[in-house]
Amino acid sequence: MSTCLSRRLTAEMLGTALLLATVVGSGIMAERLADGNIALALLANTIATGAVLVVLILIFGPLSGAHFNPAVSLADAWQGGLAKRDVAPYILAQVVGGLIGVAVANLMFDNPAWFASTKVRTGGAQWFSEFIATFGLLAAIWGSVRQRPSAVPYVVGAYITAAYWFTSSTSFANPAVTIARATSDSFAGIRPDDVPGFIIAQLLGAFAATALFAWLMPARSANTTEEKNHAQA
Amino acid sequence: MSTCLSRRLTAEMLGTALLLATVVGSGIMAERLADGNIALALLANTIATGAVLVVLILIFGPLSGAHFNPAVSLADAWQGGLAKRDVAPYILAQVVGGLIGVAVANLMFDNPAWFASTKVRTGGAQWFSEFIATFGLLAAIWGSVRQRPSAVPYVVGAYITAAYWFTSSTSFANPAVTIARATSDSFAGIRPDDVPGFIIAQLLGAFAATALFAWLMPARSANTTEEKNHAQA
Amino acid sequence: MSTCLSRRLTAEMLGTALLLATVVGSGIMAERLADGNIALALLANTIATGAVLVVLILIFGPLSGAHFNPAVSLADAWQGGLAKRDVAPYILAQVVGGLIGVAVANLMFDNPAWFASTKVRTGGAQWFSEFIATFGLLAAIWGSVRQRPSAVPYVVGAYITAAYWFTSSTSFANPAVTIARATSDSFAGIRPDDVPGFIIAQLLGAFAATALFAWLMPARSANTTEEKNHAQA
Amino acid sequence: MSTCLSRRLTAEMLGTALLLATVVGSGIMAERLADGNIALALLANTIATGAVLVVLILIFGPLSGAHFNPAVSLADAWQGGLAKRDVAPYILAQVVGGLIGVAVANLMFDNPAWFASTKVRTGGAQWFSEFIATFGLLAAIWGSVRQRPSAVPYVVGAYITAAYWFTSSTSFANPAVTIARATSDSFAGIRPDDVPGFIIAQLLGAFAATALFAWLMPARSANTTEEKNHAQA
Repeated sequence: MSTCLSRRLTAEMLGTALLLATVVGSGIMAERLADGNIALALLANTIATGAVLVVLILIFGPLSGAHFNPAVSLADAWQGGLAKRDVAPYILAQVVGGLIGVAVANLMFDNPAWFASTKVRTGGAQWFSEFIATFGLLAAIWGSVRQRPSAVPYVVGAYITAAYWFTSSTSFANPAVTIARATSDSFAGIRPDDVPGFIIAQLLGAFAATALFAWLMPARSANTTEEKNHAQA
Repeated sequence: MSTCLSRRLTAEMLGTALLLATVVGSGIMAERLADGNIALALLANTIATGAVLVVLILIFGPLSGAHFNPAVSLADAWQGGLAKRDVAPYILAQVVGGLIGVAVANLMFDNPAWFASTKVRTGGAQWFSEFIATFGLLAAIWGSVRQRPSAVPYVVGAYITAAYWFTSSTSFANPAVTIARATSDSFAGIRPDDVPGFIIAQLLGAFAATALFAWLMPARSANTTEEKNHAQA
Repeated sequence: MSTCLSRRLTAEMLGTALLLATVVGSGIMAERLADGNIALALLANTIATGAVLVVLILIFGPLSGAHFNPAVSLADAWQGGLAKRDVAPYILAQVVGGLIGVAVANLMFDNPAWFASTKVRTGGAQWFSEFIATFGLLAAIWGSVRQRPSAVPYVVGAYITAAYWFTSSTSFANPAVTIARATSDSFAGIRPDDVPGFIIAQLLGAFAATALFAWLMPARSANTTEEKNHAQA
Repeated sequence: MSTCLSRRLTAEMLGTALLLATVVGSGIMAERLADGNIALALLANTIATGAVLVVLILIFGPLSGAHFNPAVSLADAWQGGLAKRDVAPYILAQVVGGLIGVAVANLMFDNPAWFASTKVRTGGAQWFSEFIATFGLLAAIWGSVRQRPSAVPYVVGAYITAAYWFTSSTSFANPAVTIARATSDSFAGIRPDDVPGFIIAQLLGAFAATALFAWLMPARSANTTEEKNHAQA
């Protein structure tokens, strides 16, 4: 990849920050306006999140691959895409970006920058939901990135739009997002104690989808890294 | 088609499973959150279903054609697309996938994996709706697959988004989906007794649209099979 | 245009029928489910209509130009697109198609096929709305058809999505649609007495936009007809 | 740019007018129908605005660049795109167009053409929101205009769809829009006294994003002006 690492990490950090600002900010706005109608609040939250994902992947994809998600960076590195030495910096940039994004959202709505969530999200049905949510996300990415790379932003935006509704956990599907959402006690929050269960389920889902698609849609050439770079560009 | 049958059947099964997980899962979520507001619940159900169809057809189209629907597989085989010997395996994969998807949805929401629906959906207006719904779906597919193949995922997603609302049956338009939705007593369910009437109406609608479009938009070359493969890829 | 007239007229009739089935059908569904919440009913009506327009223009554009609208056919003929001798058959096909579509919608919802609307839509603000709505529609068409022809389906779908909300008349913007909607006493109806005022305003709006864009974006070659055909294909 | 200035200014004026007609018109419609449900009103307002932005940028982009926004014109001129001598005429056309659009909206809904808004929008959280909203808008534009120019209309439409919800100010992000919205005492209005604070925050946000992206995604050739023109076309 010709773009230097500092630009790529800035892209991952900035993109994850804008993603979290949207997820948390639109959650706060929706909860305030919806007057107790949770379906309507989640619908607004869904539309804002799906739309911003299309934007962020379109603009940052050519720079950094637009992962914004440690599960995606790990799966990509496993399949020979992202260089192994870049995994840790990518994940760090994503987590820091997520925390910045939550602070931006909270400050735009006159909340403290960070404050622990009290929203309980735990139990088998929730963990199974996160497994399925992340399985589906990685399936969507692996299924489109090689054959229709220009569709990736729309695939991910549309997938999350659906997944907010078809899972009982509203599809976090992203460890950096999960950590960040623990720091805002609002509509989109999650209690810090419940974070590890979500992250384990997410990583298992990402692993399962990546293994399945490695069989289902094998890379056509040996030069996978090269192919992935073009796919994202 | 160069992809071997096991991969294609996996794609049909997995795609239909994710479709049903979305239809049923988002129906349960929407009904729980909407607090009796059925219009809002159906709107959320619509947006999730339309979005996931775009995703699933984009990612599985190049593998299996992304039918997820026995009516589509039958119509395609009739027009010389899908090989006759592949029709039965395709339909089996779709029905099994649908049942798996319902189980996934039910388990994500702490329901039993399968439980018979009690939702009555019968009578002439409902059957006429399913005829029109499937007629329109096949019209959308035949109208786009030859001339604008890259638009097929968006055409089908947008069509179902509209059809959920303009038919009194909310557009099942798919025998495998109809069977699967009989096994969840929730928002998107259908009483098992009402399944055969829906399926008959769907097959008639698919037949009518396919016959009409064979006249309206004749294939340009004799080599239809080849053409269809390219169109989906 | 190589497609013979009978196919083109079938496309105009079928497309207008499916458009009206959607507009009227989703209006009935939305009104029944929304329990008096008119904003929610209009939102569902909007999303269904915008989505089906994308579908119908994508699939019928290459056949007939996908006008579905006498104002569009007249403007196109004026600018040297549609042959003068085809204008009357096109308009007839659109009006007949619209009436069929309303009957389909009414029958899907157990209503009589046609029954006169009692919904009052008259007065200066309504007429001005229809002028602006049709001005904007033709601006959207002329602005995209020459320079970005593949975007036309999305432009028209998105424009009507917006125009349902920004005009006080909910943007009929189409004489065939206006006539057809007079025959269903439901959410999307219009009293027969109010039809002429709407149609006059629509034709004036179409005329104004077409004249303005003939200056703003002049055709680049003398061979406008040829160019338009390619643009639509 | 080969298009003469009078056509380009007409495009900027007409586009900004249709944008404001949509923002203000759909705000009035939504507020009237939503019966006090502000979340639903904002959702309708959001969908209409996002959709019309896609339309307007698609149709006017090839003519004038489709800025409709003084902050965008200033940033573009700074980066060597828009000629310096065209900046003042562009901004004038945008402001005049915005005022015309508000009058059109008000008249469509039987309001006086212009009447001062009484809606208070002030304070640090609101200003910070406008800074972030405009930062994100310019990031979206700079991030897409060079690498994926055909996606710009969708990027801007989707970005504003999200930004209406994730900022506490509902993302004006545009000085011409802000001035125009001060002249309608309706859902989308802003008190004239609060306009300067919004505009200052918007210009700072546009400046910050433009500076950041000049480092993050440097133009590849020296001939930036040429490149930009092609990008928009």
